[in-house]
Amino acid sequence: MKKDRGGRTTSQRGLLARSRATAPVTLLTDFGTADYYVGAVKAVVLTKNPAATVVDLSHDIPPQDIEAAAFVLLACYRSFPPGTVHVVVVDPGVGSDRRAIVVRAGGQFFVAPDNGVLSYILEKELDPRVVQITSQEYFAQPVSNTFHGRDVFAPVAAMISLGASLDSIGPEIKDPVRLEPLKPVAGKGKKVKGRIIHIDRFGNCVTNIDQTCSPNGFTGASLNVKGTRIESFRAYYGEGKSGKLFAIWGSAGFLEISVQNRSAAKMLKAQRGDEVVLLRKS
Amino acid sequence: MKKDRGGRTTSQRGLLARSRATAPVTLLTDFGTADYYVGAVKAVVLTKNPAATVVDLSHDIPPQDIEAAAFVLLACYRSFPPGTVHVVVVDPGVGSDRRAIVVRAGGQFFVAPDNGVLSYILEKELDPRVVQITSQEYFAQPVSNTFHGRDVFAPVAAMISLGASLDSIGPEIKDPVRLEPLKPVAGKGKKVKGRIIHIDRFGNCVTNIDQTCSPNGFTGASLNVKGTRIESFRAYYGEGKSGKLFAIWGSAGFLEISVQNRSAAKMLKAQRGDEVVLLRKS
Amino acid sequence: MKKDRGGRTTSQRGLLARSRATAPVTLLTDFGTADYYVGAVKAVVLTKNPAATVVDLSHDIPPQDIEAAAFVLLACYRSFPPGTVHVVVVDPGVGSDRRAIVVRAGGQFFVAPDNGVLSYILEKELDPRVVQITSQEYFAQPVSNTFHGRDVFAPVAAMISLGASLDSIGPEIKDPVRLEPLKPVAGKGKKVKGRIIHIDRFGNCVTNIDQTCSPNGFTGASLNVKGTRIESFRAYYGEGKSGKLFAIWGSAGFLEISVQNRSAAKMLKAQRGDEVVLLRKS
Repeated sequence: MKKDRGGRTTSQRGLLARSRATAPVTLLTDFGTADYYVGAVKAVVLTKNPAATVVDLSHDIPPQDIEAAAFVLLACYRSFPPGTVHVVVVDPGVGSDRRAIVVRAGGQFFVAPDNGVLSYILEKELDPRVVQITSQEYFAQPVSNTFHGRDVFAPVAAMISLGASLDSIGPEIKDPVRLEPLKPVAGKGKKVKGRIIHIDRFGNCVTNIDQTCSPNGFTGASLNVKGTRIESFRAYYGEGKSGKLFAIWGSAGFLEISVQNRSAAKMLKAQRGDEVVLLRKS
Repeated sequence: MKKDRGGRTTSQRGLLARSRATAPVTLLTDFGTADYYVGAVKAVVLTKNPAATVVDLSHDIPPQDIEAAAFVLLACYRSFPPGTVHVVVVDPGVGSDRRAIVVRAGGQFFVAPDNGVLSYILEKELDPRVVQITSQEYFAQPVSNTFHGRDVFAPVAAMISLGASLDSIGPEIKDPVRLEPLKPVAGKGKKVKGRIIHIDRFGNCVTNIDQTCSPNGFTGASLNVKGTRIESFRAYYGEGKSGKLFAIWGSAGFLEISVQNRSAAKMLKAQRGDEVVLLRKS
Repeated sequence: MKKDRGGRTTSQRGLLARSRATAPVTLLTDFGTADYYVGAVKAVVLTKNPAATVVDLSHDIPPQDIEAAAFVLLACYRSFPPGTVHVVVVDPGVGSDRRAIVVRAGGQFFVAPDNGVLSYILEKELDPRVVQITSQEYFAQPVSNTFHGRDVFAPVAAMISLGASLDSIGPEIKDPVRLEPLKPVAGKGKKVKGRIIHIDRFGNCVTNIDQTCSPNGFTGASLNVKGTRIESFRAYYGEGKSGKLFAIWGSAGFLEISVQNRSAAKMLKAQRGDEVVLLRKS
């Protein structure tokens, strides 16, 4: 194929010319920021789509922590405009026969290894479309066995941001890998069995309990976690006296367990995955 | 209100069309970079103003450290072009009745909680105009009690970058919260009582002593800090012998206490706020 | 000189108007991300070239670690499009009489102190052109003795991104500072004496051994490092059993020493600079 100075083929330049290219391309990885990995991914995106607005979600996902990346993505993707392309590279299986996928859901696009990292998006959105990345047309050649972020995910994302169709990327699949569902389990009576799905840098424990878990509201409800009963529900962090655990509606739409000016996670010795039981009043 | 696919109202699109939108929108927070907070703030800015150039000043301000954020902003804002919009979210009082403000000063805009984080700007600039953010027109609804960075500060900043007037944001106020003034106190005779206002990653101790503290120059002057007398003034870090504390004009315009290839702060056991006495020769 | 509101002279605005300004300006520093240094550098670039796409390679180079920065740059610069301007500020000699340089090589530009940080680029690329930065026309005045990143490198890089010629920056020089060459030394017989040139956040040990070190391939070859003999060559990280050291072709084009789900550097007690001997089969 004939290429221009930027390594773009004629068809790529055609897409580029037609695109307004304003929707962001976001990056969410476990690369850290001390190495060349983030720079290389951005280089590929900007080579294929010089007008892309590249946004770092985070590069500080703990190495290979698929659930942490899944939560960070879940918690912010709806703030992005339609057409945004999210690239998630937390990829312990890179180079093996794990599949790579693109999901179109909620008017946005998600490019990632098929290891469950997109599974909260698949659970939340109606009618997601999932394709496996099989067409090698867009790949950066030669493809490294250790860095698909640069050679597979980045160029595919750039081409989607330029308007490439899902059909040009690969066949639809119906069985993407799923993590444990986000939705809490209804227990006996007025109990709901939830869990801690994330602990943030301030030590707030984010649960998977949302407004739908208690249709009549949370007045008089309590939480049980690690043997501790929490009956205080607050409107904001600074309210009330310090040193006492409380529940609060967090900005991601979930109930969080917090304590003023300290780490609730440390107080509770809590970890992600720990059970949180909601006892409703009605 | 009728909205387009990007969630923009007709009036927002009008501003967008009129704006050249080249001045940066900067972000300065204590969010860290492992969570979804930074991504969500950028998402809102770019949804409202897709042409914005978003610049990270820092997200590694120590949690709730208002003075650290105030210094970082002070030290670099004048390098930005006219029209730049700075968003500062170090906000221990989020969700309480603390006010939120926009300051216009020195041809730039500053959006922040009213907790003193803009007070060095207010001290340095002539005729700053301060308005309280009361109009909810621009907010992202519903407003979370725990994340005004996403739901209040980001959308207001985006609208300012599109040309929204201060009058559309809220009423002028005359009593924004102030930190301890930056200006050193003139002592008896040739003494000036200053303090350490910042310690950087290399251990350099930035004081609040600037060129105005000794109109006749610093020849023969000395500094007293933590019982140590410093008489050596150097032109650059690499000059002279190692292991000895010296004073140097730092790039933020203040006198700094440094030592070659080591941490002056550790040598002095110095902390922010520690007194530094300048003794002038004349 | 007459300047507009953005501090641009007439000739600067002329360059701005002529430039398509799509090639990125990248930043690679040891500034860390908690201080104002990165923000100030970006401010200067965007003041001079508001259309610049500024890309962070890394700001987490260990303080004053010239070799680490040289490797990070080497490992990703070829992924960037033609015309990219790379700014490298790892500068222990700032303010002294160390030279500042611009290198044009491989269709890209590199702006840095003359301390060896560009020396792998100079070794890899044919016919690099090196000029010393002597013209002060583009500097941000007054020039701080401690922050040439803001006052020298950033404005020069911005002007290059706008199309300024190397001739306008300073005279050509032939003796830029060089680090130890990247190319391994051919030993006796089938031996090649290499070394570890980088250790990444996962503990992978990147060597300077590339495909050219064994023209007939690596079948049957072995590596000796720190008294350990490595005979296993793998195609990807996830392959094979865990706990055993293996060699793998890394994404930067060099042979790396790795171990599944652990740090090879810790297992080997290896450091950058340690010798790695390749014994070829043929």
